Amino acid sequence: MKSIYLLGGSGSIGTQTLAVIEQYPNDFKLIGISLGNRNHASNEVIIKTFQPEIVVLKNDQHLTEYQKLAPNTRFELGDEGLIALATYPKPGLLVNALMGSVGLYPTIKAIESGKNIALANKETLIMAGDLIHQLVKKHAVELIPIDSEHNAILQALLGENKQDIQSITITASGGSFRDLTREQLNNVTKGDALKHPNWQMGAKITIDSATMMNKGLEVIEAHHLFGIPYHQIKTVLHKESIIHGMVTFRDESTKAILGYPDMRMPILYALSYPRHLALNIKPLDLETIGSLTFKPMDYVRYPLLALAYRVGELGGLYPTVMNAANEKAVALFLNNEISFLDIERLVIEAVESFKENIQEPTLEDILNCNQKIYEKVGK
Amino acid sequence: MKSIYLLGGSGSIGTQTLAVIEQYPNDFKLIGISLGNRNHASNEVIIKTFQPEIVVLKNDQHLTEYQKLAPNTRFELGDEGLIALATYPKPGLLVNALMGSVGLYPTIKAIESGKNIALANKETLIMAGDLIHQLVKKHAVELIPIDSEHNAILQALLGENKQDIQSITITASGGSFRDLTREQLNNVTKGDALKHPNWQMGAKITIDSATMMNKGLEVIEAHHLFGIPYHQIKTVLHKESIIHGMVTFRDESTKAILGYPDMRMPILYALSYPRHLALNIKPLDLETIGSLTFKPMDYVRYPLLALAYRVGELGGLYPTVMNAANEKAVALFLNNEISFLDIERLVIEAVESFKENIQEPTLEDILNCNQKIYEKVGK
Repeated sequence: MKSIYLLGGSGSIGTQTLAVIEQYPNDFKLIGISLGNRNHASNEVIIKTFQPEIVVLKNDQHLTEYQKLAPNTRFELGDEGLIALATYPKPGLLVNALMGSVGLYPTIKAIESGKNIALANKETLIMAGDLIHQLVKKHAVELIPIDSEHNAILQALLGENKQDIQSITITASGGSFRDLTREQLNNVTKGDALKHPNWQMGAKITIDSATMMNKGLEVIEAHHLFGIPYHQIKTVLHKESIIHGMVTFRDESTKAILGYPDMRMPILYALSYPRHLALNIKPLDLETIGSLTFKPMDYVRYPLLALAYRVGELGGLYPTVMNAANEKAVALFLNNEISFLDIERLVIEAVESFKENIQEPTLEDILNCNQKIYEKVGK
Repeated sequence: MKSIYLLGGSGSIGTQTLAVIEQYPNDFKLIGISLGNRNHASNEVIIKTFQPEIVVLKNDQHLTEYQKLAPNTRFELGDEGLIALATYPKPGLLVNALMGSVGLYPTIKAIESGKNIALANKETLIMAGDLIHQLVKKHAVELIPIDSEHNAILQALLGENKQDIQSITITASGGSFRDLTREQLNNVTKGDALKHPNWQMGAKITIDSATMMNKGLEVIEAHHLFGIPYHQIKTVLHKESIIHGMVTFRDESTKAILGYPDMRMPILYALSYPRHLALNIKPLDLETIGSLTFKPMDYVRYPLLALAYRVGELGGLYPTVMNAANEKAVALFLNNEISFLDIERLVIEAVESFKENIQEPTLEDILNCNQKIYEKVGK
């Protein structure tokens, strides 16, 4: 029985993580969870069903109602509550499904308290990859990616020796606008951008897929997760999203992980790693799929991906700058304040105009930089 | 430094194994080899270059010349020589690249003498899979397949738990006649049959690919190598021969091994297992390949594959019957004595008319059955 903590229990990954935990009552037990405040009815069901030892709420709006549903549960509030959950004195695996830079600090506290981490929060590694890497080593915890691409690469590396790796390849569906030219991107709407061809995901990541910023963030994450230099991290356009990731070894043998796009698979694997538990989802049927296709990545069509490689190589605060600028730009786009192509423009401008890099930033440096850029972009 | 023994040093796999060994003088040392008697000049080069401790020749035709080239080498002759090599009193990995049933007995003797086995000889597992399985367990040696499909599955299973396997999939190119209907097969020639679209291989296996008998034999081998029930072993038509094998786990995650069709890759992996050494071959370029295609296997078009599943399930002497009948029928075809479709007919007839099955045959039972069927088929 593995003890599970879940940060971000109300989002897309959080909800699916709960669904997975519920399917395996003999394997996983939910010890702690943080919940949003948008869906009161859903929160009630979760608290009543799982009876976690600790629940973290945004605020005390429905606190007394929740306390009645779970009289033995400890309730905590806000950002301090997230830290109380991360440092809860019982070993286990903490699933970080928070969105945005708010996910970073709790990850650090959880690692310091000896918890293994299943990471869906991209910002943790984008902003503080080097710091996290050191902490993971120091506290000898596991850092397991939930992102389908990195989860696939983790699977492909099972039992392998790092010295034998020649390259890793992350596949990209191409996102909502993969069939449009750059000229045609001038006229796209928010509604168009939110229609991902293969994956059902949150709004932010769906926009990041359309700009290919998502793949750029994944390249930086892969660098930190697997300790692979950027020139050995490749991306390829694979519109079917069936192969999620590949590792090519020194003998040119390539190990690929396949499956339909369904986040329950990587979530379960992150929980059960290195084992596979039975999962009742659609079996992969390559005969019906018929063909898997591959096209070279187009760095002119997708300048943010090219930028991410450069930013990754530069290191220090640069990934934080790019990420904060993108977070802000996407928020402005989703709020109908800027056009789709403005996202790229604002992110590139933020990176180009940044002159105060620090090579080994502290957590404070990172959080300050993040906030400064976020406030500045689009002003 | 790993000590290598090579049975069948003059064939296609043997020659490529020597090429691989030569590339890694710090990793592998050739201790013993058996050579054919068709290519005297090549034998001279091999003996002179590798200076093995033991060399097995078919007969004493050029013995004195070879002895001069390698004065410290022990020379042995014929079938007894193969056993001397298999039981040579120094630990190591024995690559069995012999063709046909002659490969079975030396494998057994090598396992009994504690050597690990890299197996390219199909007959060993087809004829005596259960026996070999018991011996491998008893003597705690490794049995590593060289066949690209099984080698791929071995790679895919690295670090995995057998209980987590849902199915394994062996890919099939479809062979020389994959674009022909059964009607069109009436008129094909030996020359046509020997033109495999993807692989450069010996005549026997190229014909076996065209009849899909090869895939049938591989299904039976896979059953014995990985201890997987037949209904969990799948085959799929994949004409590019880029994916060699796949494993699907209980969570529907599927691990596939990709590479251009080049036997040096599985040979090297069998030697270096579980590590990958650098190999200077064409890097896999999926972008240029463009697409990987999959079609359901057609058991009506390829009745010998359907037969192999049935024969595998029946067990005992049945696989030996099918294999011996096929070996003979292919020899008759290559000798222009029968037509292409006669191969299927003779194999199916031999299996259908066999009534003396033994469920746990001894080695003697197997060898007798093999000889009897071989003599009978086509008469």
